[in-house]
Amino acid sequence: MKILVDAFGGDNAPKEIIKGAVEALKLKSGFEVVLFGDQETIKAELVNHEYDASRLFIEHASEIVTNDDNPTMIVRTKKNSSLVKGIVSLGIDPDAAALVSAGSTGAVLASAVLLLKRIKGVSRPALVPVLPTQTGGSVALIDCGANADCTKAHLVQFAYMGSAFAKTVLGSMDPSIGLLSNGVENKKGNELNRETFPLLQEAQGLNFKGNLEARDILSGNYDVVVCDGFSGNIALKASEGVAVMLFDLIKQNILASGLRAKIGYLLLKPVFKKIAKTMDYNNNGGALLLGLQKTIIKAHGSSTAKSIAVAIIQAYKVASAELNEKIEKLLADPVDEVEHV
Amino acid sequence: MKILVDAFGGDNAPKEIIKGAVEALKLKSGFEVVLFGDQETIKAELVNHEYDASRLFIEHASEIVTNDDNPTMIVRTKKNSSLVKGIVSLGIDPDAAALVSAGSTGAVLASAVLLLKRIKGVSRPALVPVLPTQTGGSVALIDCGANADCTKAHLVQFAYMGSAFAKTVLGSMDPSIGLLSNGVENKKGNELNRETFPLLQEAQGLNFKGNLEARDILSGNYDVVVCDGFSGNIALKASEGVAVMLFDLIKQNILASGLRAKIGYLLLKPVFKKIAKTMDYNNNGGALLLGLQKTIIKAHGSSTAKSIAVAIIQAYKVASAELNEKIEKLLADPVDEVEHV
Repeated sequence: MKILVDAFGGDNAPKEIIKGAVEALKLKSGFEVVLFGDQETIKAELVNHEYDASRLFIEHASEIVTNDDNPTMIVRTKKNSSLVKGIVSLGIDPDAAALVSAGSTGAVLASAVLLLKRIKGVSRPALVPVLPTQTGGSVALIDCGANADCTKAHLVQFAYMGSAFAKTVLGSMDPSIGLLSNGVENKKGNELNRETFPLLQEAQGLNFKGNLEARDILSGNYDVVVCDGFSGNIALKASEGVAVMLFDLIKQNILASGLRAKIGYLLLKPVFKKIAKTMDYNNNGGALLLGLQKTIIKAHGSSTAKSIAVAIIQAYKVASAELNEKIEKLLADPVDEVEHV
Repeated sequence: MKILVDAFGGDNAPKEIIKGAVEALKLKSGFEVVLFGDQETIKAELVNHEYDASRLFIEHASEIVTNDDNPTMIVRTKKNSSLVKGIVSLGIDPDAAALVSAGSTGAVLASAVLLLKRIKGVSRPALVPVLPTQTGGSVALIDCGANADCTKAHLVQFAYMGSAFAKTVLGSMDPSIGLLSNGVENKKGNELNRETFPLLQEAQGLNFKGNLEARDILSGNYDVVVCDGFSGNIALKASEGVAVMLFDLIKQNILASGLRAKIGYLLLKPVFKKIAKTMDYNNNGGALLLGLQKTIIKAHGSSTAKSIAVAIIQAYKVASAELNEKIEKLLADPVDEVEHV
């Protein structure tokens, strides 16, 4: 099984991406990595590392996708980029199971959707980050930005895809599904929510728990939170903003305080580090693009080698779990699938 | 000027509400407070406090609105409740400038919208919390839950109302306005956003800065963030959820750690307290319901005496600033109003 890696996507590319690929190979066996990007640069960087050459390959790609590129155009204007060549190869090569990129979300989404087939029964692929919960578990937020405008039918499919994901990848036996809303009561929500609610209630093979407020996303009461891509993006980014602000406030206040606070900080440093690690969703790999024939993982733009290594291993696990096959079955026959899981 | 207070709304009513009213009178002059609720209970509670009796009045109301009441029905089913009697009085009494309630958001919104006139030119009143920013300032988020489904025309009105609010209450000379979206580029957003963007760009008398991502709401770069009530609610509640989770994680981790962490915590306690105070939006009073003939402040359900006192003083300030008159002028003639502000 090959995991393809866009070596030239992300703020720290190609150095950290290449280093991350090498680390992933050391941490886990069972797959090969193919680095897409300028051959000479990659070779020069690999000289600094020790690795199993029988598991690491290079596919030359002379161009780089930048944030200035129009995401929907790059499949034509940047045919020789590391991203587009990687996704094309993912679509063609039967042994290529997944692709990891830390490049621009828009570019990854647009080229994947244009170049790859969808899973049978899926109308809209969705972006799915896995977030840490207050109770030490994980929650999948679907969709988080692939589809700014959704219909009720899309949201129901997201629920099925999310449920299959939570079963196969997060290890939840009977994933509890919540619908993100502005209140917990059945009649709450905007028009889309109110239309979707009864469909989720009636849907076979889903453990639907009803509406939830955004403050409960991380509560640990849900394995999957379903929402349109616009709302999901707002929930995710608002959470990120507050976490950044809180850590920044702690730092600012300690710097502005006297020796007492500085000593306190030194003593508490291990606790802060642990929390930062829990909250850092890079530790959970990247966000999955779910619903296409092959797995795509969109790692954070600021990914370091460590997060790339986690994302590659995550890609391998998702591909090994045969998630896509399970999504296809579940959408074709929800009841049958429930009985056999 | 009278500030009306729903003494029986909120988790800590009536005790903390009554105490908060007494505190507000001590902290600030220039207004009277009228407490709505069961006369005997209020009198019995007031025995425990010292206050200026010439500034504190009681209006008897025998019923209480609960979370089980259907919000849109209470104007008929709970006519004698502290909330409905308060809002009716606010509409009739020319000397009543504002009402503060910590009761159910749905009940406060529905009865205010049903019983009070709107400001001329406003089609939809909006709920506006004021949040602390990373740079030590404030940002108004409009709408935060009064209107789950909005049109582009509503969002443009929110921008005008928010701008007038930031000028008169937050003291910003030329408030910068952002449109909450899933990316900063002009073409980002869902259908509603893409329709609204050009209207805000062309709108006279608004300092429109473009789209912003939810992670930048608290950045300090915006005085007003405009969004539909569904998205605003998600941004607000997601932020709340993460803040609660972070403080909880810090606590959990310290409790689970050894003496070193506990001493560190004791030394850092003043810093944590300061941050908790900054983040606690109760310190900014409550959320304003903007767009009605009189000011309504929805205090947090869990408000203590302190937050009620802040909310009452905030109500007095908003009413004194003649914000409603300014909104009416701005909507009638944006250009003229800009020149004279």
